[in-house]
This record gives sequence, structure tokens and C-alpha cells, in this order.
Amino acid sequence: MPELRKDPVVGRWVIIAAERAQRPNDFNPSVPAARSGPCAFCEGHEDATPPEILAVRPPGGPPNGRGWKARVVPNKFPALRIEGDLAKRGHGPYDAMNGIGAHEVVIEGPQHFTNLTELPVSGIRNVLWLCRERLSDLKRDTRFASAIVFKNHGAAAGATMEHSHSQIIAMPIVPLLVAEEMRGAKRHWEYHDRCLFCDIVDNERQMKERLVIDDPEFVALEPFASRFAFETWILPRRHSERFEEIPDVRLGELAQILRGTLRRIESALSQPAYNLVIHTTPFDTKEAPWYHWHIEIIPRVTKVAGFEWGSGFYINTVPPEEAARYLREVGEA
Amino acid sequence: MPELRKDPVVGRWVIIAAERAQRPNDFNPSVPAARSGPCAFCEGHEDATPPEILAVRPPGGPPNGRGWKARVVPNKFPALRIEGDLAKRGHGPYDAMNGIGAHEVVIEGPQHFTNLTELPVSGIRNVLWLCRERLSDLKRDTRFASAIVFKNHGAAAGATMEHSHSQIIAMPIVPLLVAEEMRGAKRHWEYHDRCLFCDIVDNERQMKERLVIDDPEFVALEPFASRFAFETWILPRRHSERFEEIPDVRLGELAQILRGTLRRIESALSQPAYNLVIHTTPFDTKEAPWYHWHIEIIPRVTKVAGFEWGSGFYINTVPPEEAARYLREVGEA
Repeated sequence: MPELRKDPVVGRWVIIAAERAQRPNDFNPSVPAARSGPCAFCEGHEDATPPEILAVRPPGGPPNGRGWKARVVPNKFPALRIEGDLAKRGHGPYDAMNGIGAHEVVIEGPQHFTNLTELPVSGIRNVLWLCRERLSDLKRDTRFASAIVFKNHGAAAGATMEHSHSQIIAMPIVPLLVAEEMRGAKRHWEYHDRCLFCDIVDNERQMKERLVIDDPEFVALEPFASRFAFETWILPRRHSERFEEIPDVRLGELAQILRGTLRRIESALSQPAYNLVIHTTPFDTKEAPWYHWHIEIIPRVTKVAGFEWGSGFYINTVPPEEAARYLREVGEA
Repeated sequence: MPELRKDPVVGRWVIIAAERAQRPNDFNPSVPAARSGPCAFCEGHEDATPPEILAVRPPGGPPNGRGWKARVVPNKFPALRIEGDLAKRGHGPYDAMNGIGAHEVVIEGPQHFTNLTELPVSGIRNVLWLCRERLSDLKRDTRFASAIVFKNHGAAAGATMEHSHSQIIAMPIVPLLVAEEMRGAKRHWEYHDRCLFCDIVDNERQMKERLVIDDPEFVALEPFASRFAFETWILPRRHSERFEEIPDVRLGELAQILRGTLRRIESALSQPAYNLVIHTTPFDTKEAPWYHWHIEIIPRVTKVAGFEWGSGFYINTVPPEEAARYLREVGEA
């Protein structure tokens, strides 16, 4: 059973996946992981994954067979386990609990392909629909305090499977960075009686210099204090606390701006590896008028060095205004 | 002039190095930086660096010539600039100031070498002495709120020069992670009236399972909630708020345990890239009885993926107890 442990200094929870007792050399990056056999995510190999949880397929199609457009399966090597109780406990001065949670994989299409933007808008809409449905379902499990939807694209971004996919992790705690975002947004709301993210969207749409795409319902922009070169956020223009409450009519529009943004980034940076994360209000927060869900995209084009790890302080050599201008000009190649 | 910008959500300061207006392709990691000519850090090429700030050399030796054992020079490509005032300002809803600070390089030895542990204990002591002296001096500049001493070893850890070196950055703000550590440690102190780090040292010396080296004055241990495989901390056993107050008599002992710890990590993980950071009380905090300086070493053996970036939540597949046992057994190869 993996264990969740809390750092007593900053209060950060960490998953210690104890049972995967590899030898230290397993962690040497100079030895790439062996890859063999057919791709377990491709159509026709449905028996190579655990049974599917949800899929987009034509009406009447049986689960775990061919014919799907996108499907969600449990992660075969989950960081957290779905069965069991939390058993919260102290270890001397420390806090720990069982590593309970859900770890699911969204397989984004049936044919072998490596890049989400190879899909048409309707295919990306399927992926977003699956993520929304899974969050809505996982939320009903009262053991889970929050969930995160993310995508690692390319080996440099931590992807271990080439076939294009996203992941969902639901967990019994709220991660430190999410808690900090909630705290900061709440502070703004308490003082100004306005949503900080709405203020950011308004400001950026007026200023225009950091704006990449300005659609009727969503914007893509480079944040003012971007940590990474070409870090890009996508936000709904209308205030909305939770991604999982996005109505059907908005899913296609979100797919459209997501595809457009990623294609611009791919074009500007020659198909970079990237990480994508959806930030949304934690399940255990009943109401959060101060929070505004959004997507963060981080191209992995610069190495993060010791200074950043050691301080939480980042050096970004591409001003967001320059990145935005470049992304506006480059178009969706 | 680089600009310091504050993320309005979590309050994180970021350096935007605006004037290095490279084209986006400059940030494509598939194109390695060109390296040519002799190493600027080697003895005999003192004119290839800015004039030295401090050096360890035999009495009477003139600066910027041969004969030094270790030397500190300004970074030729500094992330922050030493000249100017802060000019704190708002940009609409955002906060910014000039990127004022010091960015120095500690060249760890005169001959071309790539690894700090190739030096004897006396050589590492010279490096630590230089870091201490520079912090004590930088602290006198009232524009600086804090400083961080760090080392990027190996390209995978962000090193751009091969010749073994460390870096010091003094800055007008306190980085987010340092502020969080201070806050967490203060909370513990206010409730328990004890230093949290002293409690950790006591607990680990009793438990022994996460202990790597237990010297009379310093310990090396794997933290209970380690974020990374083989993450290792070195702490003074006696309570001490600030690294720069370390007495001469302790410098050799610290060099000894640092060398021993790094050699064990190198042996266990086959010479990994790593980052090393010294965490010490910020300059602008007059008294901090709750804080305890320490060194954090992070081997770069696993890729940090989207989940970690997006949540501040880490998955570590090597329990610290296993890492500690392995490091104890492997010895200083």
C-alpha cells in the first residue's frame, strides 16, 4: 500500500510508493525503460489494460471491445490505490495515511498517435467530456478531497507511454499548490469582493500584450509572472468555480481554444514536450466564489535548476509579452 | 534590466530576464548550446571572468592571477543586476520591481575538474568558507532580503559550465518556498516552544532508519516525506539559525559530512546529476529561533512530470528508509 506522508515543515503531502522496491539503479536516467510489444492503448488491445470505466463509443457498443473513440481505464501502475480506508496516523512527529485514491488514464483515441492536436476538435471534445464525467463521479467518493487532471506529453515531460493520453488522480488531501492558489484567491476576494482570475482576464483582454487567443467564451494568455518560457493559461471568460460543471455547449469551444493554443505552441517551439494541468476547486470545498478553474500549459523547453527547486523562485528568460506576440504571429501551423 | 514580478495568485516572485531577447528556438532543448575554446574557470584564464570578489590564495598573492585554490567572481550572465534601485511599482493588478540582486559564481578549484568530491576535505572547506564570507558581506546590502547558495551538478541538473562550481544569488525578496519553511517552522515553535528541525534531528537519531551519517556535529538523513528518490538533508546537530554564522571550527566538519554524503550518493546512483541548496534564515528576519539552517541535496534521477508541477504534490517511488539503508551500506566509493 502506498503511503501519503506530510512534510512537517511546509505541510506538503507526498506519495511514497513503498511496494515498488526497485533497486536504486532503476532510477538512473541514463538507462531508458525497455519498450516492447504492441501498444496497450491501441484499439484491438483492450485486454492489455484494466477494464474500462467509461468510453465514448457508438450507442450499443459493448465495453472493452473495438469501436471506441476515447476511453478511460484505471492506471495499471497506480500511484494510489482505490481500495481501503485512510487509517490516518502519526509516526512520531510526522503525519501519514494510506495512499488511497483513484489513478485513471484517458486514452485519447483508438489509432496509435502521439499528439492530442492530431485529433479534430470533436475528438478533443470527447477527451474533455470524459474528464468532466470522471471528475463528477469521483467527487461522490467522500474519501477524496480533490482531483487533478493532467497530461504529460513527451518523454521530457515525464510521459512513459507514447500513445496520446491524459491522467486523472483523485486523492484524500488537497495538494499544497492548489491550497495556496485557493488561499491567495480568497484573500483577493475578501478584500476586493471580486474574483482575482476575473480581474486577470479583464486586465489582459484590455492590455492585449499577453493575450494569445481571445474567443467569445475562453481566453488563452501568458501569465504576468510566468515561471516558464511560453507558460500559457486558458481560462473561461465567465466566472466558474469548477471544471466539472462546464456545460455541454462549452465543451466544443474549450476543445477549440485548447487545440488552437497547443498548435501555436507546437509551431513556435518545434513540437516541445509539455505538461498540461486543469486547476479546479477541490471537492472538499463546498463553495468557492473566489476561485476560477483554468488550464495551465507548461512547455518543457528549459531545464529547471537547483535555484528553482531550492527556493520556489523562477528565472524566466522569455518575457510573457514576447511569448504572446510570437504565439499570436505564428498561427496554428 | 531584469524585472521581478509577483504572481498575484500564490504570491510567488519570478525573475523575468527581459533583455535576453532570444528567439523561441533558442529554448529548444534539442539544440545544445555551443561550447568552444578553453574553460573560463580554469587557472590561467582569470581574464575570462569578471574580476574576482574573493579568493582563497596564499598570503600576498595578487587577485585575478594564478595561485588560487578557490575564487568567487560575478556571474558573467547574471539573472539579477547589482546596480540600481528597486523602483517597486504596480502594473494594473500586478506587482513588480527592478531585478536587483547579486549573482556570483564560486569556482571550486583551479584545475579543470567536474565534481566537487574530487576535492579533499580541505578543498571543500575552502568552498564553504567562501560561501560563508560572501553571505556575510551580501547581508550588509540593505536592498537584499535573502540569499540562496546552490549548486547544479551535471547538465541534467541545469549546469551550463562543466568546471565544478557553486552559485550565490542575493535578492530583494524572500522566495516562496523559503517563506513557507519559515512559516511552518514558526508555527511549530509557537505551539511546542521547540525548534522543529531540532525535533526532526532528535527523532531521526533515535529511529535510525532514515539516518545516513551521524557525526558529532552534523547529521545526514533522508527526510520522512522526501519528494525525490534519495533526497538527502544535512543539518547541524546544534541549533543554528544561519549558515553564515558557522564558526571556523565547524567548517571542516561540514566539509567532511558533505563529501561523505555526496560520495555515497554518487556511488549508489552511478554519478547522478544533482542540485544542492543551502536553506538559511533570510537576511530581513532579525531573529528566527524557530529556524535551523540545513543543506538539501536532490539527485536528478527521476523526471518531474505534470502532476508534480501542477499540484506541488510529489510521487516518490523510493521510500526514504530504503534510500537511507542503501546509502549506509554502499559506503563512500
